[in-house]
Amino acid sequence: MVTLPRFVEFREEGPREGFQIEKAIYPLADRVALIDALSDTGLKHINVASLVNPKRVPPMADTPEFFAAIHPRPGVKYTATWLNKQGFLRALDLKNVSLEGVVYYSTSEAFCTQNNNRTIEQYRKDQHDWIELYKQHGVKPSAAYIATAFGCNMEGEIPEARIAENVRLIKSVAAEHDYAFPALYLADTVGWANPEAIKRRIGIVRDIWPGIRIGLHLHDTRGLGPANFYAALEMGVDLFDSSLAALGGCPFAGHKGAAGNICTEDMVFMCNELGIETGIDLDKLIDCAVMVEAMIGRSLNGKIMHSGSLSKFRKQAAE
Amino acid sequence: MVTLPRFVEFREEGPREGFQIEKAIYPLADRVALIDALSDTGLKHINVASLVNPKRVPPMADTPEFFAAIHPRPGVKYTATWLNKQGFLRALDLKNVSLEGVVYYSTSEAFCTQNNNRTIEQYRKDQHDWIELYKQHGVKPSAAYIATAFGCNMEGEIPEARIAENVRLIKSVAAEHDYAFPALYLADTVGWANPEAIKRRIGIVRDIWPGIRIGLHLHDTRGLGPANFYAALEMGVDLFDSSLAALGGCPFAGHKGAAGNICTEDMVFMCNELGIETGIDLDKLIDCAVMVEAMIGRSLNGKIMHSGSLSKFRKQAAE
Repeated sequence: MVTLPRFVEFREEGPREGFQIEKAIYPLADRVALIDALSDTGLKHINVASLVNPKRVPPMADTPEFFAAIHPRPGVKYTATWLNKQGFLRALDLKNVSLEGVVYYSTSEAFCTQNNNRTIEQYRKDQHDWIELYKQHGVKPSAAYIATAFGCNMEGEIPEARIAENVRLIKSVAAEHDYAFPALYLADTVGWANPEAIKRRIGIVRDIWPGIRIGLHLHDTRGLGPANFYAALEMGVDLFDSSLAALGGCPFAGHKGAAGNICTEDMVFMCNELGIETGIDLDKLIDCAVMVEAMIGRSLNGKIMHSGSLSKFRKQAAE
Repeated sequence: MVTLPRFVEFREEGPREGFQIEKAIYPLADRVALIDALSDTGLKHINVASLVNPKRVPPMADTPEFFAAIHPRPGVKYTATWLNKQGFLRALDLKNVSLEGVVYYSTSEAFCTQNNNRTIEQYRKDQHDWIELYKQHGVKPSAAYIATAFGCNMEGEIPEARIAENVRLIKSVAAEHDYAFPALYLADTVGWANPEAIKRRIGIVRDIWPGIRIGLHLHDTRGLGPANFYAALEMGVDLFDSSLAALGGCPFAGHKGAAGNICTEDMVFMCNELGIETGIDLDKLIDCAVMVEAMIGRSLNGKIMHSGSLSKFRKQAAE
């Protein structure tokens, strides 16, 4: 039986995803204006920027100044991303930041080695260290991610047994450290998911870890993003990473035509049409998408930002 | 219970949809090469061009020469579109054409009047005349379309009762003229559909007309196209209009940012991933999308044409 959730939470990845992949560095004032506008949409979770090597990712060089310049709205979490201990320690000094304890697990030896320069076994050990570091600094658990949870460009299909193995592992690691993740994410890192695979893998997680909140991190690499999103809704999933205007793509994944996360405003529109609440003002969110498109200066992949929502037509029709 | 179909048929609308909306007129040889390449993909139904006023739609001025120049492949239907009797009579003289008896019904008085310059009542009467004209010329029934079957920019939401009324009407018209349509299409002409509306309306058609084959004509105006497609698959629908590279948009609908039909190769990819047969060679179809993008000279909306399918990665992973 299909049970759509009553409320869906979106975690906005657009600013970090978008800006880190661009070659240009946009004026700080423009980026701040975007975050402030996003703060006014009803979004409660905005990933602002990352703390990474500025030589490797020049647009992220001024992350501390960026965080300091935003006008935080009560109830909104402004998060940062780090890839190593040095980045995390810098994050501790950020203004306006919500520090979140996130750990990552990999399903693909080849992808893990290429992307993290670690074997799966080493990477798993690292996560223990991360949890201890987070605890040491009073950073609460936020989410555990299973990366390439559907497939990987090097190893192909990821067997369902490997998802099951990772879910069991994460459950035991959380218990071992008394660090209870409120959410477990399945990430379709390089665009291998399809709607039936989404459903089956959600079933696997629920079988092994009943009650854990499931999140999905989906990329619309091959045009199935919205269908994957809907399939997850049908399974009652209520937590998604997404990107304003479909910003993004993985700068390190190094594959041609990499697409960003599913588009926040298009998916909010879908929720609206399905009668699912999101707490987000769609028209304000579309304004943000239009704003960021003007900033970046080329046509972005979001759809409804170009076609407009249905609210105007509904209003006219009602008159 | 979800029952995905075993085989899905795609009717390719890209060439007509794409070329009629462009301002440029592409060399005949290039357009012929595209049709010939599409003929080799496994597609069985290709809408090549329309017979419309060349002053209004200049790219369609050489439709007879275009049809004459293609190299038809046995088993593939090459169809034409006409909007009035004059166009239909010209279609009778086309080479290589499959003439198909198609009728259209409207659910929105305002849209019908604006788009067809006819009231719904007049338009209904016209369809009787069309059927008699088709019969007179030995043109077999192909499909009845219900336009704006989900919503309309002028009248807003289309009530489900109006869909029911039209289904009953079409069923009785088909019986009255002994002209048995093999398919009844629900058309989301201006992008109002959502997955749940898709499911409910399919249910309505099946209640009233059990056994009729249902087709969907979907536009990806607001980013829900792939989710709507998947929702229809879940209802067992096995017939879709679609456009190569997501070409198209309605030149007459006159609304900003109108998007084309759902993207053929992205949806074929979805079917492949779901284990549904289509009879189509995805990699050849992607080559056609890349070909048409080069012809048109700007980035088109298809996704997998830019990211590539998974077959290469699967092959590498298996080695």
